[in-house]
Amino acid sequence: MNIIYVVGIGPGAYEKMTIEAADTLRDSDVIIGYTVYVDLVREHFPEKEFLTTPMRKEVDRCRMAFEEAEKGRKVAMICSGDAGVYGMAGLMLELGREYPDCEVRVIPGVTAATGGAAVLGAPLIHDFALISLSDLLTPWEKIEKRLRLAAEADFVICLYNPGSKKRADYLEKACEIMMESKSGDTVCGLVSQIGREGESMRVLPLKELKKTPVDMFTTVFIGNSQTVEVDGKMVTPRGYRYE
Amino acid sequence: MNIIYVVGIGPGAYEKMTIEAADTLRDSDVIIGYTVYVDLVREHFPEKEFLTTPMRKEVDRCRMAFEEAEKGRKVAMICSGDAGVYGMAGLMLELGREYPDCEVRVIPGVTAATGGAAVLGAPLIHDFALISLSDLLTPWEKIEKRLRLAAEADFVICLYNPGSKKRADYLEKACEIMMESKSGDTVCGLVSQIGREGESMRVLPLKELKKTPVDMFTTVFIGNSQTVEVDGKMVTPRGYRYE
Repeated sequence: MNIIYVVGIGPGAYEKMTIEAADTLRDSDVIIGYTVYVDLVREHFPEKEFLTTPMRKEVDRCRMAFEEAEKGRKVAMICSGDAGVYGMAGLMLELGREYPDCEVRVIPGVTAATGGAAVLGAPLIHDFALISLSDLLTPWEKIEKRLRLAAEADFVICLYNPGSKKRADYLEKACEIMMESKSGDTVCGLVSQIGREGESMRVLPLKELKKTPVDMFTTVFIGNSQTVEVDGKMVTPRGYRYE
Repeated sequence: MNIIYVVGIGPGAYEKMTIEAADTLRDSDVIIGYTVYVDLVREHFPEKEFLTTPMRKEVDRCRMAFEEAEKGRKVAMICSGDAGVYGMAGLMLELGREYPDCEVRVIPGVTAATGGAAVLGAPLIHDFALISLSDLLTPWEKIEKRLRLAAEADFVICLYNPGSKKRADYLEKACEIMMESKSGDTVCGLVSQIGREGESMRVLPLKELKKTPVDMFTTVFIGNSQTVEVDGKMVTPRGYRYE
């Protein structure tokens, strides 16, 4: 049986990778990934062979991994963050049915929600919902419904893929929907380039977030009704009493 | 300024800790945590001083950390999984207002949702909601509302603290609520002792999950309407076309 590891490399910095993920890359013959992620790890594994495919070539990238594994090589397929959160783990397991000699194993990592939360403070301490605003593979109506119900349920909400050049007004539309049940003063946060050069964060109210331009390297956090700002950080209390 | 690091140690196994978390523990003078988590890391840092408090003594544990830091010692407060997901990061930042000479920094880790997902396959590939069934600090009515709306929004749902001796029927009640809008045939999964000795997993339909006893070391996953079983694993497709 040829084993392929699908490895979450964390938000970007080498130190934010798990020990297991680094060991798996070190033990592999070939590391496969999207160009941007390969560039993040290449310098730490200079002796390895790397194979890349561009964005939107996910199926080709997965098949490349199976084909390398079928040659008897130890393959690691890398994903940013966690391989199981909007990552390649699902597609690899689905395609695995066509390659009965290969077994897919998933190595978890720190996803942008928890990596970004650590930069902002502690926004995700209580129940939260994770929603991607990308409508490339999901109908926008379904995204709207999830935003509306998650806001109504008073979840902390974390948004992935909040915007891009083509989807410049998606975050604004999302904020409008959440403001049907969340106050405009709800404490929110933005983190860009988590764990990478140029990392930055900002805490701001929902009504301001609505007017803020974001790019695809930004993760957005919308607090619940209890979320507060503490010394410039975003904190959702769990409910411990300490006074 | 005395810096206190609040460190997520991951699900349990040393290898599932990030490199940054391990480095932080190695650089600290004293490691503070709940007894069970201290026992998970002690053998890997035998030269360190450890301080513990029992469960439900969270405020005492945090104050202990600040008091050690005020002595000029390098302090690491450890949490299982991620420090910012039902962990101590929030309470530490809140209490930090009383200790102006101390700064709290959060080191993220792999939380049970993503650690457990990797064991089950890839259940969290698409939008998901994380809900704790513990009503120790949250009114049960609020938990019910979140379950109901998250199910209606067709989120994959991950449940923390699904049961204990005192809360033997909570998972059953939660399944009943989710079955108001999710089919009884929805693909679900259970993972126990993630990354620890005795790790086990099971994939089963929601109607069976409802009748399954669980303990506090189990994390529960309820699929969305697209989630499927693939060779005994739980997989939520993202929507890539490959046929």
